[in-house]
Amino acid sequence: MTDPLPTGAIIGILGGGQLGRMLSVAAARLGFRTHIFEPGANPPAADVAHAVTTAAYDDVAALTAFAKAVDIVTFEFENIPTDALDVIEAITPIHPNREALRTSQDRLTEKTFLEGLGLNVAPFADIANAADLKAAMQTIGAPSILKTRRFGYDGKGQSRLRSVDDAATAWADMAGSPAVLEGFVDFSIEVSVIAARSASGDVACFDPGENVHRDGILHTTTVPARLSAAQRTDAVLLAAKILNALDYVGVLGVELFVTPQGFIVNEIAPRVHNSGHWTQNGCTVDQFEQHIRAITGWPLGDGSRYADVVMENLIGDDMDRVPALAKQRDTALHLYGKADVKAGRKMGHVNIIKR
Amino acid sequence: MTDPLPTGAIIGILGGGQLGRMLSVAAARLGFRTHIFEPGANPPAADVAHAVTTAAYDDVAALTAFAKAVDIVTFEFENIPTDALDVIEAITPIHPNREALRTSQDRLTEKTFLEGLGLNVAPFADIANAADLKAAMQTIGAPSILKTRRFGYDGKGQSRLRSVDDAATAWADMAGSPAVLEGFVDFSIEVSVIAARSASGDVACFDPGENVHRDGILHTTTVPARLSAAQRTDAVLLAAKILNALDYVGVLGVELFVTPQGFIVNEIAPRVHNSGHWTQNGCTVDQFEQHIRAITGWPLGDGSRYADVVMENLIGDDMDRVPALAKQRDTALHLYGKADVKAGRKMGHVNIIKR
Repeated sequence: MTDPLPTGAIIGILGGGQLGRMLSVAAARLGFRTHIFEPGANPPAADVAHAVTTAAYDDVAALTAFAKAVDIVTFEFENIPTDALDVIEAITPIHPNREALRTSQDRLTEKTFLEGLGLNVAPFADIANAADLKAAMQTIGAPSILKTRRFGYDGKGQSRLRSVDDAATAWADMAGSPAVLEGFVDFSIEVSVIAARSASGDVACFDPGENVHRDGILHTTTVPARLSAAQRTDAVLLAAKILNALDYVGVLGVELFVTPQGFIVNEIAPRVHNSGHWTQNGCTVDQFEQHIRAITGWPLGDGSRYADVVMENLIGDDMDRVPALAKQRDTALHLYGKADVKAGRKMGHVNIIKR
Repeated sequence: MTDPLPTGAIIGILGGGQLGRMLSVAAARLGFRTHIFEPGANPPAADVAHAVTTAAYDDVAALTAFAKAVDIVTFEFENIPTDALDVIEAITPIHPNREALRTSQDRLTEKTFLEGLGLNVAPFADIANAADLKAAMQTIGAPSILKTRRFGYDGKGQSRLRSVDDAATAWADMAGSPAVLEGFVDFSIEVSVIAARSASGDVACFDPGENVHRDGILHTTTVPARLSAAQRTDAVLLAAKILNALDYVGVLGVELFVTPQGFIVNEIAPRVHNSGHWTQNGCTVDQFEQHIRAITGWPLGDGSRYADVVMENLIGDDMDRVPALAKQRDTALHLYGKADVKAGRKMGHVNIIKR
């Protein structure tokens, strides 16, 4: 990376969902302009972007024009087709880098990478067919979870095995997709670390947040998490190890299970993360701005927390609660402007300040 | 006002400067979309807006199309041509209302209005010509300030009189514009109250901020201001009196001089105000969102402060300090994306959290 991008530079963002939307607002706060690339019409990010390209990820002409129109490219989700990235990268740099994307796009690659760093992960096995699953059940056993290697999020592409008898059904659920069997981890709490690494190799982490899920989707993140000072330090060192190993530039989300034997890494996400939304109201530099700073070659910001926060996702019909939440004390509303309310769809979140 | 505007509704904003920009971001946070009307090219607000109309305020066709494309109209500055407002208001409601605009567009009307409410203002006199000024100097004396009745901001259109001898020069400075002579007020500090009134008549005020000016332009706002509890209450009651008298809907800035004899109202601004920028990092609902809530018929938000803040404007060459400020602890940068740095031009601000 050379000089920092100057104010006025244009940041291309692949994906126009709520993460792209909040990245765009953060970029504007630093004087940058954003250009959203998104196949779907009227994406949430378009309401707060300088420019929008509506095109498919296999539209080479659109990808080329997009890459030429921007100074740098980043993304809000990890499952971007490799061919699209190839087209863009021939023209404009992409941050975080391709290796980080490749690693996190595939659960097997990711777990192997983390294990290679000496970090603890749940017992896992590569499952290419029913026979693999049968064999893996001998060692990993039940309860366990079968997950597709790619394209899973918010509990999608997962099947729980309560006993060996569930194996056939679980494998059928994968519909032929390569999968990973993960052993059950007996954890007390799940926390996540939102970590950033700058172009010059500096690392900064926000305070870990404590996550509660419902139906496989993040429900709340509470900061501070119930961790000891030693655990906080461990979490930061662990995140830094991952960032450095990937020569990462940008924000990375790391989900950790807290167990009596220490942290077990659940998964990493090479992007801003739902469990980091609390930073919008708890820190002067939030995760979105931190990501923009990193990828533009700016110094990382001071992510120290000046307020305790509980972030709660608004999912599907939770939108009915907005009129009441709008009147609630110490509550910051963040709605995504999605036209259609659907069950399981992330529609917004609230950050509630705790005094 | 009828039902609250639903998420997805489009808010028209007259003016595409930094206030329109920050209003647009706040509107998006509630799921609204914005449409900016601005004569100048590439206005700061365009980077974070759903739609932009670039046209002059006397372009009736453009004003008509704009008014038809939005659900409600608001503005970021008070000096909008009356004819433009007439075109828009025939199609779409404007908040705050025309009476509030009319009152604050003219210093003489404003001071007469405030005095009529029983509030204290500096001694003033209507100056239409050199003879008026000569006569007024007999009663108001020097030091005093001659100000154009209309179109003044950030110290522009003002001339100080240190003695009667300055009268001829001061009047010449007005270039024939109708003016007001204001007597000098011996104040200890200047504070401002950012007050909001909802469509249903509820009033909410942010904590008063203490302002310091440099060269006629706001330099810093510090919250909390050095006021007693009784003074804080007085300030809120005073602001509420103004809002109610104007049947006001939206956010209003009220600048007050603190004197041994009580508050003297310096001026009011029928819009979000530079001295309210601190709310972006001190409150869960900032002044921009509060304004959007009011004009869309939403309930006013909880504007209680959860952090002490010093807001400092970045003017002209202050942009050279951005690299250092980006590294400074507890400092939130808010840049406006203006391409050209000019002396006296507001380029951004920082909100610094005080612990």
